[in-house]
Amino acid sequence: MAQPHMACEVINFAQKLSKFSEHWSPRVVAEMNDYQFKLVKLEGEFVWHDHKDTDEVFLVLKGEMEIGFRDRSVIVRAGEMFVVPKGVEHITRAARECHALLVEPRGVINTGEAGGSLTAPNDVWV
Amino acid sequence: MAQPHMACEVINFAQKLSKFSEHWSPRVVAEMNDYQFKLVKLEGEFVWHDHKDTDEVFLVLKGEMEIGFRDRSVIVRAGEMFVVPKGVEHITRAARECHALLVEPRGVINTGEAGGSLTAPNDVWV
Repeated sequence: MAQPHMACEVINFAQKLSKFSEHWSPRVVAEMNDYQFKLVKLEGEFVWHDHKDTDEVFLVLKGEMEIGFRDRSVIVRAGEMFVVPKGVEHITRAARECHALLVEPRGVINTGEAGGSLTAPNDVWV
Repeated sequence: MAQPHMACEVINFAQKLSKFSEHWSPRVVAEMNDYQFKLVKLEGEFVWHDHKDTDEVFLVLKGEMEIGFRDRSVIVRAGEMFVVPKGVEHITRAARECHALLVEPRGVINTGEAGGSLTAPNDVWV
């Protein structure tokens, strides 16, 4: 679909990442149909949450992150991706700053229904 | 959704890319809802085509590719992505081998309706 924020520009991740520093605050860089691609900087620990209606993709660009589940956890490193299935509780952690690309439908809230202080404004572009 | 081919594994792009060498032959590595993530190796020139019903994402992992349109072209390099809007004719080229990740709905044929010898089997996983 037409992208009001960027009419078919090449999106450079490093350049976009240089424009914000906040952790746990995803910034939209592109839309494909009704999906959004969001850059996020992670450091520390997020909150347990799930997304009832959608899978969620994490694609790590720099560093590494842990995705914890109730029964196990995985480490996702730069050059790797992971799909968190819908409805599955998870928590993300990064001992050092990690940069990742999220892919999920437009409108998904970062904390799901868990809420709390880490809930970020939605649909913020960079 | 549940992924029959890989039950919530970490997907390492380099490891997946080492498993095939054919150009212009996308291999599915993950599904998110009804979307697929496909790795592809590009070298040379593809064919003019469009996708009537969907946008298409190219995320370059190694090297660089050109996406040509009827009125301009863009170069997408490693660490960059581009969204080709639905219905827009395009052609992809790479002077040297380029590795990219495609994101598009399940069932999209690489050559759209253009057909021809570069039409790859669909839904081939690696």
